[in-house]
Amino acid sequence: MQLADFVDRLNDRLDHDAYATVDASSNGLQVGAGGTERPIDRAAFAVDGVEATVREAAAFDADVLVVHHGFVWGGLDRVTGIEYDRVAACIENDVALYVSHLPLDGHETLGNAARLASFLDAERRGSFGDHGGVTIGQRARLPSPRSAEEIEARLSKLDTGDRSVRTLDFGPDSIEEFAIVTGSGTDWIREAADAGVDALVTGEGKQQAYHEAREAGLTVFMAGHYATETFGVRALCDLADEWGIETTFLDRPTGL
Amino acid sequence: MQLADFVDRLNDRLDHDAYATVDASSNGLQVGAGGTERPIDRAAFAVDGVEATVREAAAFDADVLVVHHGFVWGGLDRVTGIEYDRVAACIENDVALYVSHLPLDGHETLGNAARLASFLDAERRGSFGDHGGVTIGQRARLPSPRSAEEIEARLSKLDTGDRSVRTLDFGPDSIEEFAIVTGSGTDWIREAADAGVDALVTGEGKQQAYHEAREAGLTVFMAGHYATETFGVRALCDLADEWGIETTFLDRPTGL
Amino acid sequence: MQLADFVDRLNDRLDHDAYATVDASSNGLQVGAGGTERPIDRAAFAVDGVEATVREAAAFDADVLVVHHGFVWGGLDRVTGIEYDRVAACIENDVALYVSHLPLDGHETLGNAARLASFLDAERRGSFGDHGGVTIGQRARLPSPRSAEEIEARLSKLDTGDRSVRTLDFGPDSIEEFAIVTGSGTDWIREAADAGVDALVTGEGKQQAYHEAREAGLTVFMAGHYATETFGVRALCDLADEWGIETTFLDRPTGL
Amino acid sequence: MQLADFVDRLNDRLDHDAYATVDASSNGLQVGAGGTERPIDRAAFAVDGVEATVREAAAFDADVLVVHHGFVWGGLDRVTGIEYDRVAACIENDVALYVSHLPLDGHETLGNAARLASFLDAERRGSFGDHGGVTIGQRARLPSPRSAEEIEARLSKLDTGDRSVRTLDFGPDSIEEFAIVTGSGTDWIREAADAGVDALVTGEGKQQAYHEAREAGLTVFMAGHYATETFGVRALCDLADEWGIETTFLDRPTGL
Amino acid sequence: MQLADFVDRLNDRLDHDAYATVDASSNGLQVGAGGTERPIDRAAFAVDGVEATVREAAAFDADVLVVHHGFVWGGLDRVTGIEYDRVAACIENDVALYVSHLPLDGHETLGNAARLASFLDAERRGSFGDHGGVTIGQRARLPSPRSAEEIEARLSKLDTGDRSVRTLDFGPDSIEEFAIVTGSGTDWIREAADAGVDALVTGEGKQQAYHEAREAGLTVFMAGHYATETFGVRALCDLADEWGIETTFLDRPTGL
Amino acid sequence: MQLADFVDRLNDRLDHDAYATVDASSNGLQVGAGGTERPIDRAAFAVDGVEATVREAAAFDADVLVVHHGFVWGGLDRVTGIEYDRVAACIENDVALYVSHLPLDGHETLGNAARLASFLDAERRGSFGDHGGVTIGQRARLPSPRSAEEIEARLSKLDTGDRSVRTLDFGPDSIEEFAIVTGSGTDWIREAADAGVDALVTGEGKQQAYHEAREAGLTVFMAGHYATETFGVRALCDLADEWGIETTFLDRPTGL
Repeated sequence: MQLADFVDRLNDRLDHDAYATVDASSNGLQVGAGGTERPIDRAAFAVDGVEATVREAAAFDADVLVVHHGFVWGGLDRVTGIEYDRVAACIENDVALYVSHLPLDGHETLGNAARLASFLDAERRGSFGDHGGVTIGQRARLPSPRSAEEIEARLSKLDTGDRSVRTLDFGPDSIEEFAIVTGSGTDWIREAADAGVDALVTGEGKQQAYHEAREAGLTVFMAGHYATETFGVRALCDLADEWGIETTFLDRPTGL
Repeated sequence: MQLADFVDRLNDRLDHDAYATVDASSNGLQVGAGGTERPIDRAAFAVDGVEATVREAAAFDADVLVVHHGFVWGGLDRVTGIEYDRVAACIENDVALYVSHLPLDGHETLGNAARLASFLDAERRGSFGDHGGVTIGQRARLPSPRSAEEIEARLSKLDTGDRSVRTLDFGPDSIEEFAIVTGSGTDWIREAADAGVDALVTGEGKQQAYHEAREAGLTVFMAGHYATETFGVRALCDLADEWGIETTFLDRPTGL
Repeated sequence: MQLADFVDRLNDRLDHDAYATVDASSNGLQVGAGGTERPIDRAAFAVDGVEATVREAAAFDADVLVVHHGFVWGGLDRVTGIEYDRVAACIENDVALYVSHLPLDGHETLGNAARLASFLDAERRGSFGDHGGVTIGQRARLPSPRSAEEIEARLSKLDTGDRSVRTLDFGPDSIEEFAIVTGSGTDWIREAADAGVDALVTGEGKQQAYHEAREAGLTVFMAGHYATETFGVRALCDLADEWGIETTFLDRPTGL
Repeated sequence: MQLADFVDRLNDRLDHDAYATVDASSNGLQVGAGGTERPIDRAAFAVDGVEATVREAAAFDADVLVVHHGFVWGGLDRVTGIEYDRVAACIENDVALYVSHLPLDGHETLGNAARLASFLDAERRGSFGDHGGVTIGQRARLPSPRSAEEIEARLSKLDTGDRSVRTLDFGPDSIEEFAIVTGSGTDWIREAADAGVDALVTGEGKQQAYHEAREAGLTVFMAGHYATETFGVRALCDLADEWGIETTFLDRPTGL
Repeated sequence: MQLADFVDRLNDRLDHDAYATVDASSNGLQVGAGGTERPIDRAAFAVDGVEATVREAAAFDADVLVVHHGFVWGGLDRVTGIEYDRVAACIENDVALYVSHLPLDGHETLGNAARLASFLDAERRGSFGDHGGVTIGQRARLPSPRSAEEIEARLSKLDTGDRSVRTLDFGPDSIEEFAIVTGSGTDWIREAADAGVDALVTGEGKQQAYHEAREAGLTVFMAGHYATETFGVRALCDLADEWGIETTFLDRPTGL
Repeated sequence: MQLADFVDRLNDRLDHDAYATVDASSNGLQVGAGGTERPIDRAAFAVDGVEATVREAAAFDADVLVVHHGFVWGGLDRVTGIEYDRVAACIENDVALYVSHLPLDGHETLGNAARLASFLDAERRGSFGDHGGVTIGQRARLPSPRSAEEIEARLSKLDTGDRSVRTLDFGPDSIEEFAIVTGSGTDWIREAADAGVDALVTGEGKQQAYHEAREAGLTVFMAGHYATETFGVRALCDLADEWGIETTFLDRPTGL
């Protein structure tokens, strides 16, 4: 497959256009030379696009590295310091960088939240998590109610890199319906409470989450930013496999 | 002391005017009836202004609750839900709410960062942590270099509410000069690296902090948002003691 | 009826969503505790939501006070001074506050302008008064032309609280079609002139209205901000009556 | 005097630069041909710059019309309709238009508020009325306290064009210190209450002024927008007299 | 034809509404008295609306001057200096000014780019040149490929006012498909390269165009801002002829 | 000299801080690896930072390329296409990119305008050309008046790359005092006319410049964007020479 085809297919499948004005991330191809002869035979996938993962991708001889977190957040003012090292790793090794941030969080089948729902054996019940007009999470229902301990135990199976799941156990004893916003999702505690679910599953949380969850009577699971965002990237990896590309998933948990 | 005097003195001492345009928090008196006869005989102090701490303050028979995190972040659109419960707890118990957010982070002697420097036996070497033109942290130097393990051990003495200190140990083996931004401070990793210090001490960190610290070659200590922000509130509590007010510090760690 | 039902029904009927981005007023429930057991048995209605009307509503033992002008215009920075007194009156008496500002001005059947047209025996001929993409007034036609004096005489029947109707008589001798924007409506003099009507009926006017009306050759009636805005509130009062709620209209003219 | 000198002198004396970013009015010369030979021998002065006053100025054979309210508020998109008539009246009669809006409200000696203080036999005690960083009013003290009725009686001597002074008598029985914001000044009720004065003197008021004054316990006098803003224009007229220019004041009360 | 009809017809035909929020020019009637009796018997047409063309239009005894570049770009703060001279020329000679800027660039049949395509014997192949959501140019194809020299020779036939066509000859030897943005169009070099055309035809270019064209491998023709924008104005002139109006085209090349 | 010293010295000398908020260009180091061991032994200088000049700099074995126009204008969203080629040329050849845009236009001694004044044998008389609060040009006076032809002849000595000087000869016959804004400076025609100078010297001009110059009665010389902006870059080249660095000036005229 040519790079241009690869980029167009993913942009289209992930509906990047819909997120263009609300996402600070420049989604799509962030680093890459032009030219029509660039084949994509090998692709690496990782949660974070950083110098280290670019170099691992190069070691795998990848033509492109697909990530959830890229290099550009609101425009690069300079290519110096850390940015220089990241961009230089791409250019020196001729590894293109493809990024999908919020679109990959919210996608109904390939997304981080949708796949995390499946991991919890829950059925998707609609979109959740308004972010300037688009949604970045899911709402899901368990086949039968479970306790917070049972859900925490299941989430503890994720590879979080030496980090334990943290539970703010302020909701009902028995949890049936819950919302998911992967990564940093505690800003959606109130939307979850208003939606009438029993719990919110997310990755990491800010300090005020404790009180908001407590006052809203909602249970909040924080299973790790990294751990909850491997799902969508793995889904893209499987997709590229189907397209006949040689792939690898670079697992580099941050413990955060 | 009259409420109006209490408010004026604190606003003045903490230089609230300088932070007025950059802080989303409405600093100063956030909830309180007017009238000139309101004496402040008893005052409670807490990191977080929430329904629970207002009720504890009322149980102490406090006239005012002084906090670091208040109710209003950018204006209240409605007094409903959690906001209703918080405001109602103040009004029903006649407890005023006084808030100092960024000014209390950055104050040179009373601030969270300045007092945390003292806790680490370090000497203040100037302000640090630009936030829209004001500073919200400090730079400090140890009398002699220490290892990351030694500093982590000292930080572990803080009451973090069932949370362990997390260390991203990417800096030099021996740490002498470091920056402090209490609470959520990992956005200042690059400023710390540019300033040439060996480490950044903060409370909590977002996922990308892992890679930024790694690429910048900086050691980052995350000792808990709550734990690192008790210092300034305790300093205000001591100040009110000196003014002859009956005081109490309400310790309610969040584990975050 | 439960409070939540009451709020949802009114928000829906008045189409609050359409006005959400253009109205500085937070429409809907502005003050009120949560919880599912809150019945609305008694409701008071007033043009202005202020401490005095809240206390009158409490004297009527109302569960909710429905008003045209609420407490919040662009977000409350603090609950102190006048805002404290207003909010405290709600909380201490357990009276919720429900607000409908621009949606109530512009509603086609329940609105201030629509009902004022009926009071003048005129037939509604469409919406009028663009305000950032929504309309807040009406256009109406008399069954037969009348003189400015006749219309002024009719408007003088309104309870304006010791204020006389003021007429800027710069239009044609005989008036048949006119525009209505209740409250402060003289910013729409030019739109009225462009629309080809003979007159504009409004509540109060700014100084430049004199010259604009004169140069546009339009007759402008100023019948009082308060007086022209009782119509919609009375319409909501009638609606609640139909829903089986015990109601009262609190008439507190301001003379403005 | 040359037109350029006339404009420079007034701009300088009224400190137009200080108001440049906060005033929607384009202050200074709004309409006028260039060229160095334009003498100013005769000047007319009026509160409102409109077609009628331009034509009266032309009848006086004025070279320039000096006004408080000009033609341009935030930029002219088109020179059509009323704007065409106004601009054409200037061009056809070769009458330049000079405007001073907020600077003339707030000037310490020539301003509307300062001169209204003198009219009330009060002594200026400092600036009042913050408007985006500049002040547009004054604070003043009477030699001895007076009742609201006495002050109202004095204000009733102003030429308001068939309009009576309206008093919101919610303040103390006896008034000694008061604030002044001429024109539409009821947005400053709270600043007046916070400043501890007994009353606010202004021209016209919006509906919510009634409740704000009542809740703040402040007496508010509304003596007419037009009537309170003749003072500064008359002061400029006197100044031009001193410069040897033939002058006239065009009195055209609006009743508002 | 009445002026109001003339204005409505042109606004409608040129779809002015679609360009209202993106064009800094106030399109439509920019200068003109109101009143229903204003017949349009004679109309002048010019690229630039300036004092000189207004006076030429007056010499032709025109009722209206139709131009591509008007007087107002983002609102007139003052009617002084050059603006006074321009507006005065209209008012003194009773010549209305009608403007169509971006709508006339982008119109599919009457527009500058569409007519320039015809001049080059090319067939229109769709819209080109995104400007905040509207298009201001065209894409066109030649019946058979030509060299850059041939196209340059054809463009040199335009009346540019003592200016030679400048060609940045960095594209393919043979040109078949090209984009057109008349006036200042070099900001669209990248869009043209992305669209896969061989060349961009425009009027004038900024310095960075040299490098952008070179790096994009695109040939850019700069045939004069004035020369490329006479097309649409001439098309409107022909249209008015058809409507039975006496017309003239005022040719005043700027050499730019 | 170390790279960090080189950057600090130039930033300081050119007062980059003063221009930080008004210049869309990221001034200072735009592309460059970190690390303290980077010596600057050889430096290339050019007006435009593009792939071609980076490669020429690499051929000279330069450690840094200093330019007036860099790669970043308002932040890079992606490192693809032309931007990829430019950045890759730097990284692959290990050539850092240093940029000074508006600061180099306006500098009193090293700046483009200041040096162009010297080239015309004129004496600097102060700053000119307001751009959001900073100045980007100069005002200068000739020892004795000259005709436009004489000045044009002198400007024609500049290396413009096959482009002739264009003169809009609408000012006085004899020119003594003039303003300079290098590059694209015709937006300052009115400021020049208001300042009372006889002429404006600039590089390139937009179409409306013709009419503005004509109506303002100002002579405008357009000597080429490139040609007028070599001065400041050459001055920096001389400065680096003085610092003991091996230098070269890469002359690549654009003809624009």
